[in-house]
Amino acid sequence: MRAENQPADRDTTPDIAQGFPPPPDKRVTLANWDAPPFNRWAFQHVREIIPTVEVRRGGRHASRFESDPQDLDGLPLTSHDGAPTTLGRTLEDTFTDGFLVLHRGRIVVERYLNGMTDDTLHLSQSVAKSITSGAAGVLIGRGVIDPEAPLTDHVPELARCGYADATLRHLLDMRSGVRFSEDYGVPDSDVSREEIVCGWKPRPHGSDHIPDNMYDFILTLPKEREHGGPFLYRSIETDVIAWVMERATGTPLAELVSRELWQPLGTERDANFTVDPAGFASADGGFSATLRDYARFGQMYASGGRLNGRQILPAAYVDDTLAGEPEAFAGPYKDVFPRAAYRNQFWIRDVDKAQFMARGVFGQMIYIDPPNEIVVVKLSTWPDYLNLGFLMTTLAAIDAVTEALCG
Amino acid sequence: MRAENQPADRDTTPDIAQGFPPPPDKRVTLANWDAPPFNRWAFQHVREIIPTVEVRRGGRHASRFESDPQDLDGLPLTSHDGAPTTLGRTLEDTFTDGFLVLHRGRIVVERYLNGMTDDTLHLSQSVAKSITSGAAGVLIGRGVIDPEAPLTDHVPELARCGYADATLRHLLDMRSGVRFSEDYGVPDSDVSREEIVCGWKPRPHGSDHIPDNMYDFILTLPKEREHGGPFLYRSIETDVIAWVMERATGTPLAELVSRELWQPLGTERDANFTVDPAGFASADGGFSATLRDYARFGQMYASGGRLNGRQILPAAYVDDTLAGEPEAFAGPYKDVFPRAAYRNQFWIRDVDKAQFMARGVFGQMIYIDPPNEIVVVKLSTWPDYLNLGFLMTTLAAIDAVTEALCG
Repeated sequence: MRAENQPADRDTTPDIAQGFPPPPDKRVTLANWDAPPFNRWAFQHVREIIPTVEVRRGGRHASRFESDPQDLDGLPLTSHDGAPTTLGRTLEDTFTDGFLVLHRGRIVVERYLNGMTDDTLHLSQSVAKSITSGAAGVLIGRGVIDPEAPLTDHVPELARCGYADATLRHLLDMRSGVRFSEDYGVPDSDVSREEIVCGWKPRPHGSDHIPDNMYDFILTLPKEREHGGPFLYRSIETDVIAWVMERATGTPLAELVSRELWQPLGTERDANFTVDPAGFASADGGFSATLRDYARFGQMYASGGRLNGRQILPAAYVDDTLAGEPEAFAGPYKDVFPRAAYRNQFWIRDVDKAQFMARGVFGQMIYIDPPNEIVVVKLSTWPDYLNLGFLMTTLAAIDAVTEALCG
Repeated sequence: MRAENQPADRDTTPDIAQGFPPPPDKRVTLANWDAPPFNRWAFQHVREIIPTVEVRRGGRHASRFESDPQDLDGLPLTSHDGAPTTLGRTLEDTFTDGFLVLHRGRIVVERYLNGMTDDTLHLSQSVAKSITSGAAGVLIGRGVIDPEAPLTDHVPELARCGYADATLRHLLDMRSGVRFSEDYGVPDSDVSREEIVCGWKPRPHGSDHIPDNMYDFILTLPKEREHGGPFLYRSIETDVIAWVMERATGTPLAELVSRELWQPLGTERDANFTVDPAGFASADGGFSATLRDYARFGQMYASGGRLNGRQILPAAYVDDTLAGEPEAFAGPYKDVFPRAAYRNQFWIRDVDKAQFMARGVFGQMIYIDPPNEIVVVKLSTWPDYLNLGFLMTTLAAIDAVTEALCG
């Protein structure tokens, strides 16, 4: 975590990647793209840095949002460090690029900052996990995949690695026993190796032992404890879910998300996933879409799986997503969120309140509060992977907005 | 050149890049993507292999083509080697992916092969040069750039390289005196080095002396003869044109092509350019678009710069493009096309007949015949960069189609 109030970082943004050529220290490269301040430009331009595959929205008309615009910029808030502030200032202070509030399905607030517009695709990092889970939910509803069946039913070669006797259920809740160290920015952690494998970072000289694609990488991962233990956040579990879905359907993930979600949701723009050298789409974090299209996805969950007069996702899968076990929740957030859980690739803020979130590093969030009929999307480019202060401030802002709208 | 009649190459296509993961020998990588048979898949999936920047079509409705479909598949032809064949068979024999004929602006033939569809983006290789030229023509018409002025007026640092005293006119006609060896597939040729610089090929170990972006690469090129000599095909000249356009307008090439061409043409789909690590769009060969959108571009030239009731490109620029000098034409095609010329990044087949072409390696062509009101687009994935036999067969097919339609 770092000190707040660093407007200097934000002010440098207009210089990034500008000019023909940009000055060397302002170029966005595969080596620096997710580091501040380069991420402020890069998260809106991922396809210009990494190969990507389209998630087609299809030929139908985009669904329309009704809107009921309200000026909540001056809404008084208390920042996580106790200082008085406002919603508008909080959006700027937390490096926001896009912020959208739906109440009863209508757009109440829609704000773009840092050059983002309503048709900009913005990387959402681990929000991709929840998107992938949504597609999985459709397939589970159809009986194409079974959460309780061994993964090896579809991907027999997983028998060679730590996933040998795991089920989809273990992965959906991140409770397999496979070793995968999720230490961002630490050179030899598994997640850092994964970034090389999936094409997000340059391959350093002398790293020929690291596989050149995600499928092979998954097969190198050992088991370190029994499957079904407490929740442990490991990005790779989502990639294994995607692999199972692809094998079960014979269809690439990008096409599955298009067919099962992006088309029926009536989205406005084609989205995309980054892809690795074997064509594997980064199910765990490589998804980019527009602010409103993320809101459509969130609204589908808020409406029990329905949108546009159609049951896109089985209601049972939405209910199941809220049935997380706080007893299994562990990790650094346990103190702050004692009734939290992780289920079906969503973070449940409080199982008793049925509020849940898709979240991604550097400040991405789709917040879903069905009882209050609230959906909030916040896309950001924090200067840090994780920042508990920013997270708490964001949740305080969402609570204040909810109070103002639902009071 | 290689022997014809190699249906085996075509038959392997369905296997390429299929499966989760694809078998190692069927994977398309940065190292193999333009080699046969991988190019059969790759030219329809460039964004999955190389970073790309969008060329937006804008929000307006696509322009409509009238159509007057005719079944010309059985049209008898003589192949370049004297054998009797048909149009349909020729399309298959010359590794066609898309083939479209416009007569008087109406679609007469529209064929998709090898998995291509009407919304597939297909790489067109050096057709990108003619697209870039079209955008340059708009800027010339507005007086933003001057073909006769030194390049250094806009890009002063070109004074450090062989382009020091060249003009845009020299580049548009590929008549500068700069050394650039266009030997495809030859490891140390300039064009092979360029492929590393622009991100089209993996950077081999020990190539740190090769610049990591096109801007710096251009500045390494020396002069080897006087500017204004005979035509000599060198891809790099187009990249320098693009650089001048970007500096003159403060706008990236992708945005210029969007604003000046893709939006006013009423295209159907966003196109894209591959980009290098400094964000430079490959003006000389990195453009992908749909078959029909290439046809719109061709029809604009066939109609004196007009389309959709609007003068998009100055008529004077189209006229100027046809004013090439056969006396300056040189190279291996001189024997076959004695009245040919190269002007404004187009190949003029015969200056007296006013037929001209945008052409790209591996069989890409937009053929424009204003007197006969014919536009033909052929997108292919030949197994060779160049194949004079396939080129002659294609032109014979176009002549037969023209004869059949215009009698």
